[in-house]
Amino acid sequence: MSTTFQQPRDLRLSARDRHFKLPTAGHAPGYLQANLMIIPQAQAFDFLLFCQRNPKPCPLIEVLEPGMLEPASAKGANIATDVPGYRVYRDGEFTEERDDVSLLWQRDFVSFLIGCSFSFEDALAQAGVPLRHVQQGCNVAMYRTNIPCVPSGAFSGEMVVSMRPIKSRDVAKVVEISGRFALAHGTPVHVGNPQAIGIADTSRPDYGDAVSIMDDEVPVFWACGVTPQWVAQRSKLPLCITHAPGKMFVTDLKG
Amino acid sequence: MSTTFQQPRDLRLSARDRHFKLPTAGHAPGYLQANLMIIPQAQAFDFLLFCQRNPKPCPLIEVLEPGMLEPASAKGANIATDVPGYRVYRDGEFTEERDDVSLLWQRDFVSFLIGCSFSFEDALAQAGVPLRHVQQGCNVAMYRTNIPCVPSGAFSGEMVVSMRPIKSRDVAKVVEISGRFALAHGTPVHVGNPQAIGIADTSRPDYGDAVSIMDDEVPVFWACGVTPQWVAQRSKLPLCITHAPGKMFVTDLKG
Repeated sequence: MSTTFQQPRDLRLSARDRHFKLPTAGHAPGYLQANLMIIPQAQAFDFLLFCQRNPKPCPLIEVLEPGMLEPASAKGANIATDVPGYRVYRDGEFTEERDDVSLLWQRDFVSFLIGCSFSFEDALAQAGVPLRHVQQGCNVAMYRTNIPCVPSGAFSGEMVVSMRPIKSRDVAKVVEISGRFALAHGTPVHVGNPQAIGIADTSRPDYGDAVSIMDDEVPVFWACGVTPQWVAQRSKLPLCITHAPGKMFVTDLKG
Repeated sequence: MSTTFQQPRDLRLSARDRHFKLPTAGHAPGYLQANLMIIPQAQAFDFLLFCQRNPKPCPLIEVLEPGMLEPASAKGANIATDVPGYRVYRDGEFTEERDDVSLLWQRDFVSFLIGCSFSFEDALAQAGVPLRHVQQGCNVAMYRTNIPCVPSGAFSGEMVVSMRPIKSRDVAKVVEISGRFALAHGTPVHVGNPQAIGIADTSRPDYGDAVSIMDDEVPVFWACGVTPQWVAQRSKLPLCITHAPGKMFVTDLKG
């Protein structure tokens, strides 16, 4: 029943036809997947500057010209239809989930494609580093921290991080490997000691699912692409459209 | 008579007082120096996006909020007075050189600080790689190429590159070292074969001074911070202010 898409274009067309509505992890292996943020042009300079100032949580894969629907990183794609699920926020409040946002489209919408961690997770798996949330088939654990992002205009807030338990002997290897993937958040922002960045209890993530940390493991924290969504929510934009959790925009770029 | 400033702040204050009006190379060793571009907010989103799309010629050190004069990278500095020389362009034409642009300042001006090659040149010198233009006390040779930048709005044009003759045995070392300095244009964009990127005659640079290439040397080309100036000129902005050649904004950031 369930198909694994090998080609980004096939997945995008199936999402456009409203057949495919599932999370995109594991599909189109080797291709870059992206967090999506669509905001009005009035806020686009401030948000672009926010991304420039906070490259670890907001590594930019591509920013489309105002009004444009077809990314350079995915020829023939339509940013308003080819994601398996969208979320709409009005005045900072989540209002609805849609599988197509064509009817909401405005000529001044600017779309931001922001890197996600899938690429470096693939590389870690290939290097023989097990990832607990993958083993357990759940979402990665994510936390809001007390690490302030550098603000820009209306956009400000704390960094959201993802956490992966890593064996002590693998920490250096994991830093090296993830460092090669700047568009997938790069090196960790913090290793060990969750309290120091304002995480009181790793068993209670703010997003995603909790995983246990074994005695021979250290919690390793990476900047997370949920950060710009959290910051956009806090800034109470009149309108903001994002991908639904786990349902990323799949580009034609090789990760 | 000639002082070498060790501290960025001392150089900036001397420029502000209109005492120091010389090129900044060799001053404040170890600190990041920056190309400066000041443009009206109406064009700032497109130009920021141009920089994001062309990070090799336009590595962003900092972008100031609209109207702001004090960079985060240089506390107490004033972007309109602390550069030893400014150039003013109107409708794409160079109109005048000034040592202070306070009188031209407008509340919607956005200042872009863009990396320059000084940091990696220092690192090359320390690694024992001689640089001919430094030995000869002249400017680095720069050329317009046929390499198109990725356009953004009104901003488009070819990449400008700087060229340094490097001994064949040092080319790999030079790639490695410059690659550590992403804010100083990173790795070369082209090694050898000037004709392939539209440079007919290396003895006739478009900017800076020609240097000879010896038999055991290869011309190595890096993306150059003159690119955004060239592109801004081509886009015929109503008003654009830059630093004068070689007279950079000196930040407090360690290179």
